[in-house]
Amino acid sequence: MPTNKMFLLKSRPVGRCSQDNFTIKSEEATKPAAGEVLLETLALSVDPTNRIWMSDMPGYMPPVGIGEVMRSLGVGRVLQSNDPSFAEGDIATGLLGWQTHPTLPASSLSKVPPLGGHSPTLALGPLGMTGLTAYFGLDRIGKPKKGETVVVSAAAGAVGSIAGQIAKKAGARVVGLAGSAEKCNWLTSEAGFDAAFNYKDGNLAKHFDETCPNGIDVYFENVGGTILEHVLQRLNIGARIPLCGLISQYNATEEQRGPRGFEQLLMKRARLEGFIILDFMNEFPEGISFLANMLQAGELKFQETLKKGFETMPDVVNVLFDGGNSGKLVVQVADELPKI
Amino acid sequence: MPTNKMFLLKSRPVGRCSQDNFTIKSEEATKPAAGEVLLETLALSVDPTNRIWMSDMPGYMPPVGIGEVMRSLGVGRVLQSNDPSFAEGDIATGLLGWQTHPTLPASSLSKVPPLGGHSPTLALGPLGMTGLTAYFGLDRIGKPKKGETVVVSAAAGAVGSIAGQIAKKAGARVVGLAGSAEKCNWLTSEAGFDAAFNYKDGNLAKHFDETCPNGIDVYFENVGGTILEHVLQRLNIGARIPLCGLISQYNATEEQRGPRGFEQLLMKRARLEGFIILDFMNEFPEGISFLANMLQAGELKFQETLKKGFETMPDVVNVLFDGGNSGKLVVQVADELPKI
Repeated sequence: MPTNKMFLLKSRPVGRCSQDNFTIKSEEATKPAAGEVLLETLALSVDPTNRIWMSDMPGYMPPVGIGEVMRSLGVGRVLQSNDPSFAEGDIATGLLGWQTHPTLPASSLSKVPPLGGHSPTLALGPLGMTGLTAYFGLDRIGKPKKGETVVVSAAAGAVGSIAGQIAKKAGARVVGLAGSAEKCNWLTSEAGFDAAFNYKDGNLAKHFDETCPNGIDVYFENVGGTILEHVLQRLNIGARIPLCGLISQYNATEEQRGPRGFEQLLMKRARLEGFIILDFMNEFPEGISFLANMLQAGELKFQETLKKGFETMPDVVNVLFDGGNSGKLVVQVADELPKI
Repeated sequence: MPTNKMFLLKSRPVGRCSQDNFTIKSEEATKPAAGEVLLETLALSVDPTNRIWMSDMPGYMPPVGIGEVMRSLGVGRVLQSNDPSFAEGDIATGLLGWQTHPTLPASSLSKVPPLGGHSPTLALGPLGMTGLTAYFGLDRIGKPKKGETVVVSAAAGAVGSIAGQIAKKAGARVVGLAGSAEKCNWLTSEAGFDAAFNYKDGNLAKHFDETCPNGIDVYFENVGGTILEHVLQRLNIGARIPLCGLISQYNATEEQRGPRGFEQLLMKRARLEGFIILDFMNEFPEGISFLANMLQAGELKFQETLKKGFETMPDVVNVLFDGGNSGKLVVQVADELPKI
């Protein structure tokens, strides 16, 4: 049996997470019992929700317990299967956790079909949870219409970049916020956004005035904080705010107040609605089919930031909060990633 | 022609409004031109929105201009009609404003049908804007289901008391917050609420724990502030918050932050949506029919606080913010109110 190397949560981070919050443990991988599968982890997905799961706060899933393997999405290759639904060599995705050789119930995994010679990490990004998050947030809550103004925060991120392209396909005018000139350039020159600006270069109000002269109809919210406050002041009547994330608050060590201008939700009869992708599990095929069609038609541009080194997982989580990634942030765990 | 006595807005209040913010002016009433109607104001509706309209802030209607007649809903009797849709003696409701003898376009008024010997002020309350506000907020956004827990703030108020009864009719468990033991007693003994507590007697957390042991599915929001923060901590997954009012903030002289626990809207995938009744104007008949049926069936209990004296209008607005009313707050303007 191979050795399974694991990150166990040792203590809950205050602010940013670090290696000190984890213990690394190595032990022989567990032989799969009936209904189980042993995987070799190929790559792990790094998402803002990882940081939420480290905290002991009411969330949409229970926090990771102290001493437990850190939770995360990943993609792996089946080494041994004790379930008829998987064969050796299959590629599977699910909550693999921060471990190199997990043994998991087959029912908790989805098979990744051949992707036409792409990296299996596509199943963690545009054709996986992040792409689906963009799709369901816009399709079920945002509902952009032709000619409306759609604003996306963290627009160069894994979810935001796809949300913007879906809104564009619906005929909306799409404005993206990102954290560098380079990211903004990618948004307008590659991803088809109508406008983009760097939220870090000061004067948010001026940027919003220039890029959203007709107000904001849909705000795909990934960050919270000051940006949301600027958006609230520019909402059009009947605006929709799919609340996908509040990344600016996840490292907060003090209790956060809600946004200034909260009353604008009343004044403008706006709808703000939180969602998580797990609520749409039964409808995933619809979303995957939509995204796969966009990909095939060349309408879906995406970026991936691939980091190497399983041992650096806690540090890579911080990359997200520093804006150090463009598109989907992934850690390669296996020595090589196959084309599938 | 009768004399029209008017309140003109002189200055925008900072904090509470007072007589100093208005000029009283008397002049001969205006003879109705073609398509217009001259009314004798019978009663004026006093609503939290009056205070919003005095402020120069972005709202759902423009603020009342300095020097203009203060805006408000009211019910009146037609004295002269220059439009085929109204005859002398008809009872009509609409934005009469703070004036004793308004002349208004007939198209801006609705005729009040006979109410079976009730006061015409019913058209300002349970069968008027406040009843309709409760109906559409619950029917279109709150959508209470059998067995769910519905919390209503300002529950003894004109909107809240009816919202609670509609939720009860839908089979929900209904909990009301009000500002006195007497009001709470009315809610449980008369209006059929399952529980009620006085939010002024301290220890909100304990009250919520006791009355909402299974969390909160629908929160009919009238007040904002601390109460909303307690509710956010107790939301069930998929909760709905019809955002009807934020009365705790309307007199604020400093910029307000949003509620603590705002992130719970994400964690619990809750829907928060502002609404105003004017957006549903085309659907009023549906709501009025629903409420009239409840009234006829004896399922609609309501209270009215009737103040006399047109000259006291600005002071009566403050009664709302002090919780000095039970149910609909109305000022009688005519010497006598007919039964209609």
